[in-house]
Amino acid sequence: MDLYSGHINKLVEELASLPGIGGKSAQRLAFHIINMPKDRVERLTRTISEARENVHYCKICCTLTDDEVCPICSNEKRDHHTIMVVENTRDLAAYEKTGKYEGVYHVLHGAISPMLGVGPGDIKLTELMQRLQTEDISEVIVATNSSLEGETTAMYISKLIKPTGIKVTRIASGVPVGGDLEYIDEVTLLRALEGRTEL
Amino acid sequence: MDLYSGHINKLVEELASLPGIGGKSAQRLAFHIINMPKDRVERLTRTISEARENVHYCKICCTLTDDEVCPICSNEKRDHHTIMVVENTRDLAAYEKTGKYEGVYHVLHGAISPMLGVGPGDIKLTELMQRLQTEDISEVIVATNSSLEGETTAMYISKLIKPTGIKVTRIASGVPVGGDLEYIDEVTLLRALEGRTEL
Repeated sequence: MDLYSGHINKLVEELASLPGIGGKSAQRLAFHIINMPKDRVERLTRTISEARENVHYCKICCTLTDDEVCPICSNEKRDHHTIMVVENTRDLAAYEKTGKYEGVYHVLHGAISPMLGVGPGDIKLTELMQRLQTEDISEVIVATNSSLEGETTAMYISKLIKPTGIKVTRIASGVPVGGDLEYIDEVTLLRALEGRTEL
Repeated sequence: MDLYSGHINKLVEELASLPGIGGKSAQRLAFHIINMPKDRVERLTRTISEARENVHYCKICCTLTDDEVCPICSNEKRDHHTIMVVENTRDLAAYEKTGKYEGVYHVLHGAISPMLGVGPGDIKLTELMQRLQTEDISEVIVATNSSLEGETTAMYISKLIKPTGIKVTRIASGVPVGGDLEYIDEVTLLRALEGRTEL
């Protein structure tokens, strides 16, 4: 839509290219930004630049962090013999939020997807295998998503690690707690059935 | 949620303070930005700054524009005797999209809302009244929203203009075209009934 301002149009386009922001909300955001006080806009752009500039991969577990080694990897109270493999830092944050997992992590930054052309070499698998050689690991918990890509990645990792003799486990999939069976898809229902445990 | 990176936390907070962006999508956006190529991030921040810096009010109709006078006000083919009063530039853009309105606009940048403490002095009403004195206007079409604030503003404008003898009209409210009566709120249904026209 021609908004009669080249600058607004450019801003709307730029914002609409971000994930989860459609045309309408890009427009609303753009008008909001234009009406924001100048110092707030400066703070916004500075925060964006600084985050992009200063956040990098932890040299051990590859999660995003401000330091060379992330606070989890440098925490001596964690169990450094158990590694949970996750697809991204958001998934790590989700497990950290439970407060119950005491081990450390390894962040793949993606999952194997032949459809999207993401191969094993495109995710942090070499880094994981290196850790298994240099660190004293007793268990690798594969917590990739239970999507096609996540499952493929889990299978691949399991095949890779099994020859080393290190225990590889996979988080359970099934009906979410509090989930109403009626609204849950069939694949999940079957998974829950297959994964049933004795009471 | 503590994401173990101060920079990411700050970015998430900053993004979540924007309208229509909740905690989850701020997080997703932040991770997206951190993984974006540096030149793309620079383009994003530059576009934001430039828009905030260079967009201002048209000195005639108060819409947001890059120029001193907006392209609509400086377009000689438009009917400069008819002013449509809208709440904001997005509403102007919506009417422009119809391609059928030939007059010019006046953008209030808000609506009167005693609840939010927005009075007549807080919106571009003085500018509108000045235009009615200096320009040769035959009709003012009040196209504020059909919300409580929009209706209040419309009433106020109508009372303000009537003594000048200039014709003041209000856009119709009723059932949207293609709207299914079943899903339309009662107030709209009553409005549509009150505003019925002979066939």
